[in-house]
Amino acid sequence: MDLRAATWTDVRDLETNLAVVPVGSTEQHGPHAPLGTDVLTAEAVADAALERTDREVVRAPAIPVGVAEEHRQFPGTMWVSPETFRRYVRESVESLAHHGFDRVVIVNGHGGNVDALREVGGRLTRSGEAYAVPFTWFEAVGDHGADMGHGGPLETSLLWHCAPDLVDEDGLEAASEGAADGWGEWTSGANLAYDSAEFSENGVVGDPTDGDERRGTELLELASDALGRLLEAVAERDVTRPEPR
Amino acid sequence: MDLRAATWTDVRDLETNLAVVPVGSTEQHGPHAPLGTDVLTAEAVADAALERTDREVVRAPAIPVGVAEEHRQFPGTMWVSPETFRRYVRESVESLAHHGFDRVVIVNGHGGNVDALREVGGRLTRSGEAYAVPFTWFEAVGDHGADMGHGGPLETSLLWHCAPDLVDEDGLEAASEGAADGWGEWTSGANLAYDSAEFSENGVVGDPTDGDERRGTELLELASDALGRLLEAVAERDVTRPEPR
Amino acid sequence: MDLRAATWTDVRDLETNLAVVPVGSTEQHGPHAPLGTDVLTAEAVADAALERTDREVVRAPAIPVGVAEEHRQFPGTMWVSPETFRRYVRESVESLAHHGFDRVVIVNGHGGNVDALREVGGRLTRSGEAYAVPFTWFEAVGDHGADMGHGGPLETSLLWHCAPDLVDEDGLEAASEGAADGWGEWTSGANLAYDSAEFSENGVVGDPTDGDERRGTELLELASDALGRLLEAVAERDVTRPEPR
Amino acid sequence: MDLRAATWTDVRDLETNLAVVPVGSTEQHGPHAPLGTDVLTAEAVADAALERTDREVVRAPAIPVGVAEEHRQFPGTMWVSPETFRRYVRESVESLAHHGFDRVVIVNGHGGNVDALREVGGRLTRSGEAYAVPFTWFEAVGDHGADMGHGGPLETSLLWHCAPDLVDEDGLEAASEGAADGWGEWTSGANLAYDSAEFSENGVVGDPTDGDERRGTELLELASDALGRLLEAVAERDVTRPEPR
Amino acid sequence: MDLRAATWTDVRDLETNLAVVPVGSTEQHGPHAPLGTDVLTAEAVADAALERTDREVVRAPAIPVGVAEEHRQFPGTMWVSPETFRRYVRESVESLAHHGFDRVVIVNGHGGNVDALREVGGRLTRSGEAYAVPFTWFEAVGDHGADMGHGGPLETSLLWHCAPDLVDEDGLEAASEGAADGWGEWTSGANLAYDSAEFSENGVVGDPTDGDERRGTELLELASDALGRLLEAVAERDVTRPEPR
Amino acid sequence: MDLRAATWTDVRDLETNLAVVPVGSTEQHGPHAPLGTDVLTAEAVADAALERTDREVVRAPAIPVGVAEEHRQFPGTMWVSPETFRRYVRESVESLAHHGFDRVVIVNGHGGNVDALREVGGRLTRSGEAYAVPFTWFEAVGDHGADMGHGGPLETSLLWHCAPDLVDEDGLEAASEGAADGWGEWTSGANLAYDSAEFSENGVVGDPTDGDERRGTELLELASDALGRLLEAVAERDVTRPEPR
Repeated sequence: MDLRAATWTDVRDLETNLAVVPVGSTEQHGPHAPLGTDVLTAEAVADAALERTDREVVRAPAIPVGVAEEHRQFPGTMWVSPETFRRYVRESVESLAHHGFDRVVIVNGHGGNVDALREVGGRLTRSGEAYAVPFTWFEAVGDHGADMGHGGPLETSLLWHCAPDLVDEDGLEAASEGAADGWGEWTSGANLAYDSAEFSENGVVGDPTDGDERRGTELLELASDALGRLLEAVAERDVTRPEPR
Repeated sequence: MDLRAATWTDVRDLETNLAVVPVGSTEQHGPHAPLGTDVLTAEAVADAALERTDREVVRAPAIPVGVAEEHRQFPGTMWVSPETFRRYVRESVESLAHHGFDRVVIVNGHGGNVDALREVGGRLTRSGEAYAVPFTWFEAVGDHGADMGHGGPLETSLLWHCAPDLVDEDGLEAASEGAADGWGEWTSGANLAYDSAEFSENGVVGDPTDGDERRGTELLELASDALGRLLEAVAERDVTRPEPR
Repeated sequence: MDLRAATWTDVRDLETNLAVVPVGSTEQHGPHAPLGTDVLTAEAVADAALERTDREVVRAPAIPVGVAEEHRQFPGTMWVSPETFRRYVRESVESLAHHGFDRVVIVNGHGGNVDALREVGGRLTRSGEAYAVPFTWFEAVGDHGADMGHGGPLETSLLWHCAPDLVDEDGLEAASEGAADGWGEWTSGANLAYDSAEFSENGVVGDPTDGDERRGTELLELASDALGRLLEAVAERDVTRPEPR
Repeated sequence: MDLRAATWTDVRDLETNLAVVPVGSTEQHGPHAPLGTDVLTAEAVADAALERTDREVVRAPAIPVGVAEEHRQFPGTMWVSPETFRRYVRESVESLAHHGFDRVVIVNGHGGNVDALREVGGRLTRSGEAYAVPFTWFEAVGDHGADMGHGGPLETSLLWHCAPDLVDEDGLEAASEGAADGWGEWTSGANLAYDSAEFSENGVVGDPTDGDERRGTELLELASDALGRLLEAVAERDVTRPEPR
Repeated sequence: MDLRAATWTDVRDLETNLAVVPVGSTEQHGPHAPLGTDVLTAEAVADAALERTDREVVRAPAIPVGVAEEHRQFPGTMWVSPETFRRYVRESVESLAHHGFDRVVIVNGHGGNVDALREVGGRLTRSGEAYAVPFTWFEAVGDHGADMGHGGPLETSLLWHCAPDLVDEDGLEAASEGAADGWGEWTSGANLAYDSAEFSENGVVGDPTDGDERRGTELLELASDALGRLLEAVAERDVTRPEPR
Repeated sequence: MDLRAATWTDVRDLETNLAVVPVGSTEQHGPHAPLGTDVLTAEAVADAALERTDREVVRAPAIPVGVAEEHRQFPGTMWVSPETFRRYVRESVESLAHHGFDRVVIVNGHGGNVDALREVGGRLTRSGEAYAVPFTWFEAVGDHGADMGHGGPLETSLLWHCAPDLVDEDGLEAASEGAADGWGEWTSGANLAYDSAEFSENGVVGDPTDGDERRGTELLELASDALGRLLEAVAERDVTRPEPR
């Protein structure tokens, strides 16, 4: 049930403790893909999964600004500090838990949010306020995952499928040509770079022309299936904390 | 220019320092209106104003969860603490200002956010990071303002106009019957109540059946006109801080 | 019972849960009125109300520095950040509640404190630590309220009554001549100004020569009566939080 | 110049960078002395020193609630956390420094504030915002200092001199009989006690009947002389930070 | 140069801007390995690298308590919150940078610290206070990395080499038998577990008997070589932040 | 039992609630003594006391960086803010208390930590999380205490005894010649100085050549005896908080 469109009386009548909170970022995705990519894709995956499941699940509005200072050299990129992001997500989840929706999957579309969400999930879960697990869709698409990049084949494919009007075809060629091969600059297992502009001229990592609508369809199916399985697991899990040894 | 749909190269090519950030809340609006009312209406007003203006204005994604603990007794209401809300809005605006969009109108659809947004605007403006002014649409609709309430005639009218499918007609009668006459319980100029459930059985203040689509059309026109004028004023204002006396 | 003058054994013997905490500001009030105006008036109103009531009420010392950065261009104005002010007031009230004085009226003399005090009251009340309600005296003086201003007729009148030595008669003429007509600079329901120096040359809003000692006497009577009624209401109110709907 | 009684135009005309901020506590002082003792005495010492000095000195209002949780078992004791106290004092001083009053002596009447004030002074001074030095009057009264206690001979003497009406003569005998000999319970240089109720039945340390009005007169003279010398030293000191070695 | 053993005059005479800060954790490592494993190993790797390099490098004392609440069910495990850990590490590095040691490798021995250290490094680097890069030794040992676990073959091997007395041989068999195969409980790319006690009976992941002294020797060589290369890269890197696009 | 060297199974088998946490600083100690002096001495005293006591006591790793900004003009000095130090120590102690080691002596070797540790102890104790008492070794060595200084006779003596290789004999003469007589610059009981470089050219206070190995032996004996007595007192103390009066 989409909270944005439901009345409180609708919500009152639900019999579930499951919720999803889509979380993205508003940040550069190259000269061809919109700044809203990470929100759009997170919402697409969340909604597709909810369509497929028989369980009742509360669907919160998407949180649109995340941990993205790493893209600040690219115009239009928005961000908040990790600490503020953690607070905003955590308290949003706590308000859901207040109504009994205390098993929550945070459906994430942005790599830069991953660490912060894991920390939030741990704090909520250990305190007993909610059992909250982050799910990042591109970590759940099997072998495709290796091609992730940034504004690369995976995200561009999913956009072709979900929001084709938002892919700037004129920008694609430039995106492909200027794309970096990989994320970061690595020495001895350490990433020497903190800003994407250190290693990518146009903000893209991975060749977006390796994606197409068909791949997007498959990615959505894989990701939403995975999220469906996760919702089952979260619903059924014994979340009592272990006894001291 | 809607950041969600634009590429960073689109944003780079803009020549403006103006931005709007819609801000709402996901909270009960009675048995007839959706929890997303305050976001929907803030976005509707912002978008209508941007359509009418000749200026280039950056349009940020809407911030969906605000200061709404006062409605926590009603299922589905989400909220964050005022401090977290202030941080999230302030840092979001700072990230826009980083790119030169440092004259910002925060377009607000929720009464509970008003104090926090004023504080954020003051801090941003005095520090020189951005000139930020909050605008709450129902404070700019002339005589209509007196009917504001909560889930009452104004918000319901605007929904009839902008998102008629989200008004639950079955709930309207109950909404009307159970509505409180006014917001709060007052003695000596002080509101004794902190939670809306202290004075409203069903969360509604003001009779929503006093609204209709036509009134919604007028409200949108009034509010978006007002926002247009405010954008002009914000664009033209001398924002240097006064000299010490 | 005035805590400043009482011993702990005096306090121990009280049978009440009511307290008042005067809160003001040390800030410019024009060339004719003292920086301490908001503390003086808050204390005057609080003390007058306590004289009139039969109830036992604990009277805390006044908190002298508030949210007043808006006057920082005027020499001598002191302020703390809103967050620090909220913490200081909240924890002061919590310490009273620790001893059982957990129904508290915060008697305020400064407009800039209003939002912060409402937030503090909400937090204390919802957490169950104390039931705390802010009362701002010039919001409880009937039709006089429309003349409020800053260093204007109301405050000046009350000073004529309570502390006539502190009104600088030589400054009155200048105050009157340089006074602004209203607080702020408004467009579309939004205040474009954040500092009082943006719209008032000498820091005054409203003509202080419209006040006199007689008006001050009446204001004190009105305000202290109102506070007396509020204390009754606070003492008698059922403060259990509403049940979830 | 007492800020509470001055207009901003008075303050503007000052030619000084010196200020004092009295700081106390509202806390139990035995069955004979008022909860306001530490504020009263800090103000008395500050005002006496200002009377004797030829320098212009800004005199801020007294901060009435300090770090006093150690007395929380005694009714009426108020306190804030050390962190909140530090913030409130620091920002108050910063607001004075904003106007050029950036050499500040914090005149303290409460032992529990000492550590916090030293930390505040260090932070302000090292950041260059203000040169702020705390002065605790009973640390500057020569051999009398050894008798300090709490509600004991020194504070009681000073009250006899400054506010004799506030000494409860009926409570004196009980105060004397129940007084502890020393502050704390010590083993190996460590104080095992955190609350004064652990070692004092009635909250008193030191026999208050060892004090009288004459001793109070002498104490005020000693303390205000000492404060006068400190103001000289603070005014004349080179406060540039040392160069790195 | 080891700061613990150097005088400030020694440090003054250094000509370098490079520093290392070892960071570990005091937490359970199974029934056979000491709680100090992560500090010991981080220090061993740091010291071995410093021995091999020709560059002058400041060596800070090791920070012994990290982000380890995930092991709290096992007696003796110490931890601080991620936020406190980030503050402690960040400010420690800032103090080094104050003296000009502003290229810093944080040598880490604990997986639970990784996310926090990356956040700290980003903040320090983007603010320009220091260029700080975390290095986690077991991410830089080539193919061995796949065997990492917790108290498993890698850490146990390194202990056999660096601190053989601290491996409890009696506990090894139990460690081996009760060890979990992998870290966490995974569904759809999400780890459902937050505490190690959810998936490991005795706290061990990976079979420690797959390690021996020879492997430890090799690990130390691999890790310290890698750290040496990283120090070169950090010393030589252009750390000016990229220009806005 | 030293946590660094113990397994969790060792710790599980303990029957005690006593722990010690050594706390020091990494800061200049003159041209003759190492930056690590305060950690070394704190650990030496803690370990000597644990050797002498029959009680089982958990021994945490030493916290190496403390409140030492006062020495920042001297190269190599590390520090964190008082607030961060308090958080780090407090949460470290809380993690010990989580396992039942909730009577804790914080063994301190640095004067600059004293105020912060007292605040931490108060907060932990009043909240009931742990009974924590700081012990600063040089406050428990009888008449020697008067000679304390900084890098002076006491610390140097203890180093001669515990870590003679770390005393730089070549630096001793310079240390002696450039040493200040006392800590700070005092007027009217107030210390006008905030940085040690304001009153000591080489960072030393007190003549280190007044110390020798024999005095070090005696100091260690005195301090560890005192700590042993304190451990007894902490173990036996009734730590229930007093009843309200």
